[in-house]
Amino acid sequence: MKTLAEVLEGIRGADEEALAEAQKHMDSLIKPLGSLGKLETMAVKMAGITGKVKNNVEKKCSIVMVADNGICAEGVAGSPQDITLVQGMNMTKGICGMGVLSAHAGADIKVVDVGIMSDYNNDKVYNRKVKYGTDNFAKGPAMSREEAVKAIEVGIEMVGLAVSEGYQLIGTGEMGIGNTSSTSAVFMTLTGESAERAVGKGGGLTDEALRHKKQVITEAIRLNQPNPSDPLDVIAKVGGLDIAGMVGCFLGAAYFRVPIVIDGVISALSAYGAVLLNPHVKDFLYSSHKSKEPVYDLIFKELGMEPILEMDMRLGEGTGCALAFHIISAACAVMNNMATFGDIQYDDSYRIDIRK
Amino acid sequence: MKTLAEVLEGIRGADEEALAEAQKHMDSLIKPLGSLGKLETMAVKMAGITGKVKNNVEKKCSIVMVADNGICAEGVAGSPQDITLVQGMNMTKGICGMGVLSAHAGADIKVVDVGIMSDYNNDKVYNRKVKYGTDNFAKGPAMSREEAVKAIEVGIEMVGLAVSEGYQLIGTGEMGIGNTSSTSAVFMTLTGESAERAVGKGGGLTDEALRHKKQVITEAIRLNQPNPSDPLDVIAKVGGLDIAGMVGCFLGAAYFRVPIVIDGVISALSAYGAVLLNPHVKDFLYSSHKSKEPVYDLIFKELGMEPILEMDMRLGEGTGCALAFHIISAACAVMNNMATFGDIQYDDSYRIDIRK
Repeated sequence: MKTLAEVLEGIRGADEEALAEAQKHMDSLIKPLGSLGKLETMAVKMAGITGKVKNNVEKKCSIVMVADNGICAEGVAGSPQDITLVQGMNMTKGICGMGVLSAHAGADIKVVDVGIMSDYNNDKVYNRKVKYGTDNFAKGPAMSREEAVKAIEVGIEMVGLAVSEGYQLIGTGEMGIGNTSSTSAVFMTLTGESAERAVGKGGGLTDEALRHKKQVITEAIRLNQPNPSDPLDVIAKVGGLDIAGMVGCFLGAAYFRVPIVIDGVISALSAYGAVLLNPHVKDFLYSSHKSKEPVYDLIFKELGMEPILEMDMRLGEGTGCALAFHIISAACAVMNNMATFGDIQYDDSYRIDIRK
Repeated sequence: MKTLAEVLEGIRGADEEALAEAQKHMDSLIKPLGSLGKLETMAVKMAGITGKVKNNVEKKCSIVMVADNGICAEGVAGSPQDITLVQGMNMTKGICGMGVLSAHAGADIKVVDVGIMSDYNNDKVYNRKVKYGTDNFAKGPAMSREEAVKAIEVGIEMVGLAVSEGYQLIGTGEMGIGNTSSTSAVFMTLTGESAERAVGKGGGLTDEALRHKKQVITEAIRLNQPNPSDPLDVIAKVGGLDIAGMVGCFLGAAYFRVPIVIDGVISALSAYGAVLLNPHVKDFLYSSHKSKEPVYDLIFKELGMEPILEMDMRLGEGTGCALAFHIISAACAVMNNMATFGDIQYDDSYRIDIRK
C-alpha cells in the first residue's frame, strides 16, 4: 500500500506531448474548431492523463466513502445520523438512487466504510474503518492528524485497487449525515470565506436551523484554530473521515493516472483539498453536476472549473458522477470515431449539381 | 398522412391520471422527496405522455431537417451555403459529430431533405424537398403559406413514421446554413424582441458582420410585415423550411404521444412555434443543452423550461439531443428500478448495534 508521502512525491502532471497530439487530432475532425465545446476539452484532457490520444472508459466504478460526523450532535443536519449506515448498506444492494444510476451507466460501486459509527454484517462493504465516526468538532478536533492521514490512505488504496482491476474511469461519492458542515468548515478555514456565503441547508434545514449551523461552524473554527496553510491540519480538526477518504481518492487518481469525477459539494471540497496538497491533481479532474449548496460555486471558482450538468439534484452518494460518465464516454467517442477532413476530402460521390 | 389541421385538432395534453400516479410512485422511492431534481420531473412527465408510470426509451432516433436559406445571399452566415448539403450527406454516414454521438447513445438518425438547394445521389436521405431552399426574405417572403404547411406536414409524417417503427424517444436536429437568421427573425416578430438582444453570431461572425446581420433581419421584418399573432404567417415570411419541418416534428410528437427533445436554438424556436399553434405541445418537450446563441435563453424563458446540460457546444445537428438521451433514459431507470420505502422497511438484517 502506498503512503500519502509516497503519493504526494510521485504525482506527475499531464502528459504534455499526448495533450498536444490529442488537440491536433481533435482539430482535424470534420467540425468547426471548438464547436463541440466541453466534449473537446474533456477528450483532450483524457490524453494528458493516459498518454494516449484515443481512450476507452467503458470499465468504470464509483468509490463511495461512508463515515459518520460527530458534529451531528449539535443539530446541524436535517436527517437522523442513522441514515449514514442505512444508506451505506442500501448502496451495496443497487436499489437506491446511486445503485440504479450506476447500473444504468454500466458502472460498479465500491462502498467503503472509512468511519461508520457502528458495526454491521455486510461483506460487500470494504471495511476500512479508521474510527467510529469523527469526534464533535464543536468541542475539539474531529480527529487526529494521524487518523486523517490514515483515511486519506484508504482513498489512495481504493483507487489503486480499482486501477489494478482494470477500471478506466473513477467516480466519487459519499454518505455521511452532517458532512456539509465539515465541508463548509474546511473551505472557510482554507480561504477565509464567511459562514454567510459558505454555509447552506445541506439535506434540508429551516431558516432558523441554518442560522444555528452557521454559528456552530464559525465557533468551531475559532475553537480549533486549524492552520489555513496546512490542509491536513484543517481536514483533521474540522473535516471528516469521508472528506479525507475522498481527498485520498483524488490523490490516488493522479498518482495512478486515471480520470476521476467530482460529484457534489463534499466531493468538490475534497478535490480542492487534494489540489492544495499537489496542484497536478487538477489535470485528472472531471466535473459532473452543479450542486445547489452555495459553497459548491465558491469551490469551483477556486478550482477554475465548471459543471456540465444542471439537474437540481441533492441526493449526493455519487449520483452526479453516474450521469457524467455517459458524457465523458461520449467525449471519448468523438475523439475515437469522428472522421477527419483528410478522410473525407475526396468523397464527392453524392453530388449532382451543387450550383443548380 | 396527417394534415396539419387534423393534427392541431387531435392533440391532447398530458394524461393527468398517469401523472398523479407517477408522482405518487416517485415519492415512495427511497430518497428524500425531490432530491433527484430534474430526473424526477423528467420521469414523471414521461408518464403524462405515455399514460404509463414505468417507461422504456431504449429505441430512440433523431430527425434532422436539412434545408437551405435564401437569406444567405445577404452575407449573414459565417459558412459557405454548400455546407448544408455536405454535412447533410455526412450525417447519413455516421462519421460527423451527430453520427458519432447518436451511435454512442444507441440512437438512429433520419436525415430529411425538406429543402436542400440542389439534387444529390443518396438513398439514405428522406427526400421530402418542398422547394430548392427558401427565397431570400430580405427581398420578399421566404416561402408561401402553403409551402410552410407542406414542410410542417413533412415533420408530422416523419414522427408518425418513427412511431410506427417503434421509436420511443425522438430527438430533433437541423442543418441549414443561415438558419440562426431565420430563427431570430421569427422570434423577434412573434415577441417584439429587438435585434440587439435576439440576434447572435450563429456559427461564427465578426462584430461588424453581426451588426450587418442585425440590420438585415430588422429590415426584412419591416419589409415582409408578418402578422405576429399568426405563427404560420411568420414562419412562411421570415422563417425557414428546416424550422417549419421541426415545428411539424414537435406537433407530430404531441399528436402521436411520444417524448421529443429540443436541441439547440433553431430547435427551441421551432418548439416554441409549435406551442403557439397548440399549447399542449409543451407536455411532450424535453430540454437538452444550453445554446450560446442569445435568443436561446429568451425562447426558453417563454417556454418556461431550463436546459440540463451546459457543454458550450455550437455544432447543432441534434448533438445536444444525443447527449440528453442518456439522461432521459437515466430518469426512466430511476422510476423503474429504485426500491420504495415499502420494499425495504423490514430489511434490518445488516444491523449489529446502531446505538454503539
